Amino acid sequence: MNYLNVGVSPSPGNVPVYHGSNLKVLDRRVRLAELILRCVISALAILSAVLIGTDSQVKEIFTIERKAKFTDMKALVFLVVADGLAATYSLAQVVRCVVNMIRGSVLFNKPLAWAIFSGDQVMAYVTLAAVAAAAQSAVIAKFGQAEVQWMKICTMYGKFCNQVGEGIASSLLVSLSMVVLSAISAFSLFRLYGNNNKRKRDERS
Amino acid sequence: MNYLNVGVSPSPGNVPVYHGSNLKVLDRRVRLAELILRCVISALAILSAVLIGTDSQVKEIFTIERKAKFTDMKALVFLVVADGLAATYSLAQVVRCVVNMIRGSVLFNKPLAWAIFSGDQVMAYVTLAAVAAAAQSAVIAKFGQAEVQWMKICTMYGKFCNQVGEGIASSLLVSLSMVVLSAISAFSLFRLYGNNNKRKRDERS
Repeated sequence: MNYLNVGVSPSPGNVPVYHGSNLKVLDRRVRLAELILRCVISALAILSAVLIGTDSQVKEIFTIERKAKFTDMKALVFLVVADGLAATYSLAQVVRCVVNMIRGSVLFNKPLAWAIFSGDQVMAYVTLAAVAAAAQSAVIAKFGQAEVQWMKICTMYGKFCNQVGEGIASSLLVSLSMVVLSAISAFSLFRLYGNNNKRKRDERS
Repeated sequence: MNYLNVGVSPSPGNVPVYHGSNLKVLDRRVRLAELILRCVISALAILSAVLIGTDSQVKEIFTIERKAKFTDMKALVFLVVADGLAATYSLAQVVRCVVNMIRGSVLFNKPLAWAIFSGDQVMAYVTLAAVAAAAQSAVIAKFGQAEVQWMKICTMYGKFCNQVGEGIASSLLVSLSMVVLSAISAFSLFRLYGNNNKRKRDERS
C-alpha cells in the first residue's frame, strides 16, 4: 500500500505533524472550536472584569455621601481576579492555538496535553466557584435574607446592582465556555491513551 | 499466533469483556480508584446533608425565643439538595461499579461512557457551585460585611455555625472527589477515541 502523504513526521517542539487521517477533519473542527471558545472567553472575561471593576454609585443619605463599589463585597473582588486570570490564560492559549494551526500540527505530546488539560480544568472550576459565590452575594443584595437581618441593598443602589448583574452574567458565560473547553482538552489528552489498535488486532484474531 | 484467552467477547448489556491486555492492570487500578471515590462521596455527602439538615440552635433574646435553622439561608438548602443528589447518584454508580467488577467487564460502550462522563461532570460542577455559594454565605455569617451592614451572626449562634462549617468542609471533600472522578470518567470515555492504531501503522510505513 502506498502511504505517500500519510505519516507522522517530527516537527519542532516534539509535536509530530499528522497527515492524511480520517481524524484530520475531526481534528480541524476541534481545533477551530477550541480557538473560537478561547477568543470568546478572553473577550467576555475582560468585559466582565471591566463591568464589575469600574462599577460604583454614590448616594446621599441625609447629607451623608455613601459610595458603593465592587470592593465592598469580597465575592466581587474574587470574581474580578478570576476573570483576570481567565482572560490572561485564554489569551496565552489563543496564541498557542494560532501557532499550532499555522504549523498544521496536532497535539501528540502527552506532557503538553496534560498541562493544557490541567490548566483548563483549574480555570473551569475556579471561574465557576467565583461565579457561584458572587451570584450568592448578588441574590442576598437583591432580595435580602430577612431571617438573619441582612437587608437588600439593590433598592438603594439600583444602577450599581444592574451593572454587577451584567458582569456576573458575562462571567457565567465564561465559566460555561471553560466547562466545554475542559471537555475538549480532556478529549485531546485521553485519546492519546486509546487502545483501539490492540482491540482491533484482538477482534481480527 | 495463538490468541487463546485474548479477545473481545460479547457480554450482556453490550459491554464486551476484555482479556489479556497490558492495559488490564491500569484498568483494574482505575476501576478500584473509581469505586473507592464513589463510596467516599456517598458517605461524605450523606454526612454533610445530615450535619447541615439537622442543625439548629435556639437563643433567647429578652424573653423572645429565636431559632436558627439551615432553611434560614437559601445557600444551605441548595447545598443539602446538592449533597442529596450526589449521594443518590454515587450510590447508583457504586452498584454499577460492583456489578462491572464482578463480571470483570471493561467499559467499551460509548453511549454508556458518555452518560457516565456527563453525569460526573454535572455532579462535579453542581456540588462545587453549591459549596462555593454556601461558603460565601458562611463567610458573611462569620465575619459580616460591614460595608453593606450585613452583621455577623456566628457570635450569637456559635454551635450552629460550627456544625454548618463541618458540613461545608465535608461537602468540599465531596466536590473535590467528584472533580477527580470526572477526570477518571473523561479518561474512560475519550480513550475510546484513541487513534494509536492508525499512528502505529503510519509509523511502520
